[in-house]
Amino acid sequence: MLIRELTREESVGLLTRVRLGRLACARANQPYLFPLFFAYFENSLYCASTGGQKIEWMRENPMVAFEADEIHSAQQWESVIISGRYEELAKTPETRDERQLAWSLLQKHELWWEPGYVKTITGGVERPITLLYFRISIERITGHRATLE
Amino acid sequence: MLIRELTREESVGLLTRVRLGRLACARANQPYLFPLFFAYFENSLYCASTGGQKIEWMRENPMVAFEADEIHSAQQWESVIISGRYEELAKTPETRDERQLAWSLLQKHELWWEPGYVKTITGGVERPITLLYFRISIERITGHRATLE
Repeated sequence: MLIRELTREESVGLLTRVRLGRLACARANQPYLFPLFFAYFENSLYCASTGGQKIEWMRENPMVAFEADEIHSAQQWESVIISGRYEELAKTPETRDERQLAWSLLQKHELWWEPGYVKTITGGVERPITLLYFRISIERITGHRATLE
Repeated sequence: MLIRELTREESVGLLTRVRLGRLACARANQPYLFPLFFAYFENSLYCASTGGQKIEWMRENPMVAFEADEIHSAQQWESVIISGRYEELAKTPETRDERQLAWSLLQKHELWWEPGYVKTITGGVERPITLLYFRISIERITGHRATLE
């Protein structure tokens, strides 16, 4: 097996093929991470979330890391890791176009879910979910590829 | 779609079915994450790594988060998130049995790679890779499942 660095172009290529990634945030040096769907567009990742603790953490500390990959086996994989900043697209008139962009990028893919159909049961209490849109502004991007030589 | 919490038993069930996860660490409140293979055993995750920046970070700050999932679609998935501590199985006589355990747990699965076959090219320089074993001691575990109602 041989591990090589990806060029920036190759890394961006993976981000345009893949829809599912993992996002990590931190508070008081305690990291947290979660899976999420995303869409790459002009050096940013557009995402939507159902809210919760992770959103609170990213509002407090917008420094995040993101990872996406294509793993076929332990010997054949590509992985891209991003350092970036969390930028919330709050429900204000100023962000309307950006939220529209996020929605239109995300809903192109079959993996997308319509928020109106989502409910959660936490602690025995059922409640509807509303979606919050945000953008990860990419500051640094590195990628690696492993191949059977 | 309905999102429910998993019981601890259900969360551990996922950790015994899945081999690939993502581990997040943090330094100076900047998170970092990476994919890795793991094996669950007695409230710990056993892992191996090729070293690098992430290991330095976890030595400095052993607070980590780990995520594993089975995602069939945006509406049908399970995800387990762990808070835990990084415990390195350094190459000393005291950790020999633990390293042997880690190796024997990890090599059971086809995804495992034999370290002797791994090389990396970084900055144009080819170098062999040696494996470092570590354990994530689980402190908190939460899981969720989404279903088409």
